[in-house]
Amino acid sequence: MPAPDSQDVISRCRELAAISEITDGACRTFLSTAMKCCYALVGEWMKTAGLTVSVDSAGNLRGARSGADPGKRVLLMGSHLDTVRNAGAFDGVLGVMIAIALAEISAQSRLPFDLEIIGFSEEEGVRFGIPFIGSRALVGLLDEQALQRTDSAGISVAQAIDDFGLDPLEIPNAARKTPPLGFLEFHIEQGPVLDVADESVGIVEAIAGQSRASVRFLGSANHAGTTPMHRRRDALAAAAQWIGVVEHLACATPGLVATNGKIDSQPNVGNVIAGDATVSLDVRHADDSLRQRAYEDLHHAASEIAAKRRLELVWTELLSQKAVRMSDKLAAALDSCTAKTGITARRMVSGAGHDAMILAPHIPSAMLFLRSPGGISHHPAESVRPEDVEIALQIGRNFLDLMSTAYYNLESTP
Amino acid sequence: MPAPDSQDVISRCRELAAISEITDGACRTFLSTAMKCCYALVGEWMKTAGLTVSVDSAGNLRGARSGADPGKRVLLMGSHLDTVRNAGAFDGVLGVMIAIALAEISAQSRLPFDLEIIGFSEEEGVRFGIPFIGSRALVGLLDEQALQRTDSAGISVAQAIDDFGLDPLEIPNAARKTPPLGFLEFHIEQGPVLDVADESVGIVEAIAGQSRASVRFLGSANHAGTTPMHRRRDALAAAAQWIGVVEHLACATPGLVATNGKIDSQPNVGNVIAGDATVSLDVRHADDSLRQRAYEDLHHAASEIAAKRRLELVWTELLSQKAVRMSDKLAAALDSCTAKTGITARRMVSGAGHDAMILAPHIPSAMLFLRSPGGISHHPAESVRPEDVEIALQIGRNFLDLMSTAYYNLESTP
Repeated sequence: MPAPDSQDVISRCRELAAISEITDGACRTFLSTAMKCCYALVGEWMKTAGLTVSVDSAGNLRGARSGADPGKRVLLMGSHLDTVRNAGAFDGVLGVMIAIALAEISAQSRLPFDLEIIGFSEEEGVRFGIPFIGSRALVGLLDEQALQRTDSAGISVAQAIDDFGLDPLEIPNAARKTPPLGFLEFHIEQGPVLDVADESVGIVEAIAGQSRASVRFLGSANHAGTTPMHRRRDALAAAAQWIGVVEHLACATPGLVATNGKIDSQPNVGNVIAGDATVSLDVRHADDSLRQRAYEDLHHAASEIAAKRRLELVWTELLSQKAVRMSDKLAAALDSCTAKTGITARRMVSGAGHDAMILAPHIPSAMLFLRSPGGISHHPAESVRPEDVEIALQIGRNFLDLMSTAYYNLESTP
Repeated sequence: MPAPDSQDVISRCRELAAISEITDGACRTFLSTAMKCCYALVGEWMKTAGLTVSVDSAGNLRGARSGADPGKRVLLMGSHLDTVRNAGAFDGVLGVMIAIALAEISAQSRLPFDLEIIGFSEEEGVRFGIPFIGSRALVGLLDEQALQRTDSAGISVAQAIDDFGLDPLEIPNAARKTPPLGFLEFHIEQGPVLDVADESVGIVEAIAGQSRASVRFLGSANHAGTTPMHRRRDALAAAAQWIGVVEHLACATPGLVATNGKIDSQPNVGNVIAGDATVSLDVRHADDSLRQRAYEDLHHAASEIAAKRRLELVWTELLSQKAVRMSDKLAAALDSCTAKTGITARRMVSGAGHDAMILAPHIPSAMLFLRSPGGISHHPAESVRPEDVEIALQIGRNFLDLMSTAYYNLESTP
């Protein structure tokens, strides 16, 4: 039987999408029944690729194979198997399917290092409101507090692990033992950059840092008919003015994205001036100092708008997460592996978080993005092009070759 | 016993505010139990003023007294006795209490015309979502469709009338029989104009026309981290830009008020670009053509913003109500009556609707606004100054004198 090609990878992704908790798009949350069924099928594909299958105590599905120098160093590849609600077929899953295909492709030519393919149990944060349960366990960062988080039915992470037939007390053993050479994650871009540029793949050099805030303008609710314009303390008008500033600053700052996605106004009645308006802010940039400056500029702008309008401003910071750099060495390796396929991959910053972001501070990590047609993701219409998957598979083969060749060099300078 | 003065008027208003369906501020809806209790008390004050008390089939509390020339012409005075939720003590009620005080003040000097004080049963529209039940019945405009409207408990207007011990079939008899000389309504301004100008009273010459629309921007929801700024079709950013245009136009157009009081965004999540945002528009001006032009300019601006951002615009007109002019003759009469008190009353446009707006096309109508301290209304903190009530009572006395003197003149040219 020939090793899986791009069509096989895509059809496996689509097959898994049908294994869902809902009928309208894919939905597989942490250790759900759908996930159990998914593991059974993916486990079969792992076995076919010559991998020994296990599920660790954080619920990660793992397929391992020893190399010529067993137990010395291991190369990790993979992504996550859980999904958002109404998901498409490729977010996360594609990275696992490509990794399994590469394992099968390389099965005949024994690699010098051990290989492990990981299907992370949880990346999206749907069931418990906290993301990265799987990858955090791999680097020993899944703490007791996270284990006590409960889902909407009141079931804790620890209980869910127990219910799945696993032992939450064994979670420390989910962390890596064999020193890793690195981690490689293939993932759809989930944005339009590659699609607009008509490029197949991109190499992630960093995952953007992120600031989030809740920004509340407090004015006075009043009668829409009897209150002259100059006497108003209109919270919604202030919020709208500030949203314009946010958009303007982001458009004027290369690499910055800033979003006001959520707005809530009170009393939110057509014939009453809004006395209270709360807007969300989400600011991301690969450069933490630029992100921080933008964040502070926007805070300052909100203060000025509030002061000029005689409003009160309540600014609540919700998140300040630094950017995470991928391994420069592995990114350079992906450069040369891509060049061998006859194309040049652009360096990219990921605006979204990924498992590689959790692993990168502990394990040299690399990510290859595949074009998202139409930039569509987190939606059943999410897709991927066969030719892009083919290129990704070639890059992956080249990567395994390169890592084999450079095994001792890389080992000495991880 | 001396006739009631400003302190009596104010204390009666405060006494009625305690007769409420809720404990947190006044709340008296159409023909509620609280309203029955209110009618009993107000009815007593009417009797003391020498009025014969009845409740018509639309639930209006009416106190009538014949003049020297009975059944020929009647002067109407009053306002409404219902309230919004968490109301203050003076909206509506003050006009009824001043009218009763004037009836009592004038009880000794027999007026040439009949006098009728009306406490309208419903002006705010709280219980059935339609306002002016009382005043519409008075001019024969309470139709079957309105009578079939139901409240949140499924009780229709007709049923509520029946439950109160009245006969909905008799509603046509609520309309005036004796030809009215005119209608005079005292009311708090519910806005800040008089307070800011430090003036006691104003004469309403028109009630502003009003346009309302629901304005929906349709873009694309997308990932806040992975979608570059220039690729976004952000519905909330578009709505915010347009809100800025609305405010700017209103500030630049004398007499115009324009309000975006309500906003709803989808999916309304902090890390997702809004794909859908709906904003309310409320535009008011005394001049219908100016209002209409502003409305059309704002529609055009919304279309341009949507087009430039590659969004779809869905504009839904909800209301287009023409301005209503008060009687010029009666406004001039109020001018001279005010001048006699030693002050000059500014002419004003009411941005809010009032019972006088319903009556004006059928009965020569006049309104005198009393200062609202702080512009506060529809709130338990709503207040009125004793000296302003005193001036209103003087103006009312002067008005009754003037109407008596001019009785035959006015009668020949209503």
